[in-house]
Amino acid sequence: MAPWNGLSAAELDLLSTLFWSAGGSRHGMAERLGFSRSRANTLIAGLIEQGLLAEAGPRASTGGRRPEQLQLPAELGVLLAVDIGATSLDVAVMQPDLTVLARHAEAVDVREGPGVVLARVRQRLRELLQALGIPARRVLGIGMGVPGPVNFEAGQLVNPPLMPGWDSFSIRDYLREDYAAPVFVDNDVNLMALGELWRLQRGLSNFLVIKVGTGIGCGIVCHGEVYRGAAGSAGDVGHICVDQQGPRCHCGNVGCVEAMAAGPAIVRMAQAAAERGESPALAAVLRTQGRIEAIDVGHASRAGDVAANAIIQRAGSLIGQMLASVVNFFNPSHVFIGGGITQIGPLFLAAVRQSVYQRSLALSTRHLEIQYTPLGTDAGVTGAGVLAMHETLRARGVAP
Amino acid sequence: MAPWNGLSAAELDLLSTLFWSAGGSRHGMAERLGFSRSRANTLIAGLIEQGLLAEAGPRASTGGRRPEQLQLPAELGVLLAVDIGATSLDVAVMQPDLTVLARHAEAVDVREGPGVVLARVRQRLRELLQALGIPARRVLGIGMGVPGPVNFEAGQLVNPPLMPGWDSFSIRDYLREDYAAPVFVDNDVNLMALGELWRLQRGLSNFLVIKVGTGIGCGIVCHGEVYRGAAGSAGDVGHICVDQQGPRCHCGNVGCVEAMAAGPAIVRMAQAAAERGESPALAAVLRTQGRIEAIDVGHASRAGDVAANAIIQRAGSLIGQMLASVVNFFNPSHVFIGGGITQIGPLFLAAVRQSVYQRSLALSTRHLEIQYTPLGTDAGVTGAGVLAMHETLRARGVAP
Repeated sequence: MAPWNGLSAAELDLLSTLFWSAGGSRHGMAERLGFSRSRANTLIAGLIEQGLLAEAGPRASTGGRRPEQLQLPAELGVLLAVDIGATSLDVAVMQPDLTVLARHAEAVDVREGPGVVLARVRQRLRELLQALGIPARRVLGIGMGVPGPVNFEAGQLVNPPLMPGWDSFSIRDYLREDYAAPVFVDNDVNLMALGELWRLQRGLSNFLVIKVGTGIGCGIVCHGEVYRGAAGSAGDVGHICVDQQGPRCHCGNVGCVEAMAAGPAIVRMAQAAAERGESPALAAVLRTQGRIEAIDVGHASRAGDVAANAIIQRAGSLIGQMLASVVNFFNPSHVFIGGGITQIGPLFLAAVRQSVYQRSLALSTRHLEIQYTPLGTDAGVTGAGVLAMHETLRARGVAP
Repeated sequence: MAPWNGLSAAELDLLSTLFWSAGGSRHGMAERLGFSRSRANTLIAGLIEQGLLAEAGPRASTGGRRPEQLQLPAELGVLLAVDIGATSLDVAVMQPDLTVLARHAEAVDVREGPGVVLARVRQRLRELLQALGIPARRVLGIGMGVPGPVNFEAGQLVNPPLMPGWDSFSIRDYLREDYAAPVFVDNDVNLMALGELWRLQRGLSNFLVIKVGTGIGCGIVCHGEVYRGAAGSAGDVGHICVDQQGPRCHCGNVGCVEAMAAGPAIVRMAQAAAERGESPALAAVLRTQGRIEAIDVGHASRAGDVAANAIIQRAGSLIGQMLASVVNFFNPSHVFIGGGITQIGPLFLAAVRQSVYQRSLALSTRHLEIQYTPLGTDAGVTGAGVLAMHETLRARGVAP
């Protein structure tokens, strides 16, 4: 049972605001919430008494005033954050303010199905908690990202193209065997967007996070909140057509950007270049390793390999072409690019930018910033922690 | 000066809720606002006393209870609604509940510039008010839609491609000479979206309105509110590329959907078909009128002309292709299509649907509805009325 059961809406607002601002002063909280100083102080005193809020030492002087900083106490309990990618698993135990207490990452293949993968998740979470000496009952909430479309209310994947065995599997029921805490499941790139939104302390209202890895997906922040769409499939940009004469995609259509520019397409282009003798660097990789990975194309590019540069240029340009449509439609202030592709280097980003600025309208791109995700590979697991904390607080708010 | 100056946030909320629900009962208002019955009744009594709210006769019995209906009193004043299209002008005088008191429509050419067009607007508004015997001081607010990207805060067009003379012209200052009431300016298709949102009493949270006329634009409703984007250019879908080998557009790029499928493109295809002898019907139009308009293609299609059908099919298919990208990204529950294209008949809509369902992901289209705008040609002017009322109330709320 969450410790904030039975709190008033104002108290929950205060805790939520503190969480989203990564701590804050008494004065700052009152201001943000539109409360009077005295009302804020009364609420804060009550929450401190209940152990739901703690004072931190005085902040460095800011012009004479020394406001008392507030924080979410570590004693409240812990959050479990799980980020399942198509080929990777990231789990972490976090404090309520998202300080990471323990973390583990390993390779997985989601196509092995929910039975195998979730058993691994369960095992890793148990091990991490055990090492920390934290019992399961101290878990406040669990957030999980998965690489497919999610019915957010049900906590289930819906027709996931990359992981057919997971369709309608109840992740929530599976984890309920170990934990009484609520389980929230979302698409992995929505969680990256949520993670960046938290890092920004909600300072940007309308931005996108594009994940380029095995597939291509997009997290959307609109009016200051993650937008999931009418059926939870918003941001499914991997199957936007960028070439009417392009190759057939597994979805049945032709010229999908995912089929032409995601990780596997980059690998295919690299293998073809190696086999055709166009790239000494990639041919050497193929000889010694027996296969090429996307990151090898990045290495070859950085070493000046012309064919590798052309492949990265082509992938970036195609993704930029898809993004140009999305930017014309959505007019975001920022586009953050994350996922495995970020390891490939700055040339990719330059190609994306060139393509977007060329194809989008001037007004849409006048102040548009395109960059790699500031949280980098932490975006997903951070977002899972945000989901756990935000939704647990919200669930209490809705049904006190 | 608006009559609701100095009201409390709760009173303004109540009036706004009543406006968006097109009237309502005391009980319904209390419920929607989360107020107790007694708090709502106190607020309502105060507002009635100030003449800001009125009781309407009892509603037909709904199971024994006969709640007193509330409405915004006509005595409050009037709203002026102006919808400027690329080739049309629609003006209306409305009551606060959007009942139309007088209306006028005529052809204009926005390329004549703001001096000419706005003088016409001013003249028409004066005439309508005069005929109704309503003095200018009784105008509560003015809402205006224009066919280009708008800086909403400034009430100015920004680099409008179809109307270069309007760039940064202050529409607000121009109308201020006649009226003390606030003037709000928005993109025409945003207003169509706002109009439909009001008609639906905010019953849908995430939908799109596509206007196909001289250009192609899109109004976006996200999280229950019109979304304008970081720079006000959201929904600029006319320049999404649908053919990398397509013709050059006036924007500088190739294959923009607007250049290939909007009104002028349909006319071009029709003229070519007539000249090549492929369409007896269109050739006859060209002979007798000297030119062909988009609506003639619709007539010819309905009469069974094969070439006209092919043109409509092609335009619908290209617009559907653009929409498929947008639907994959945004996952709306509904897409409403409006503008001049709606006169062309059902074949166009069928072609759009076929193209979207073929190109979008199954999850995005499972519950997607694509139809013509329910408000039809009234969507723009209704939206201008909604803008006037909603923003006037909101402005009071923000700065009491």
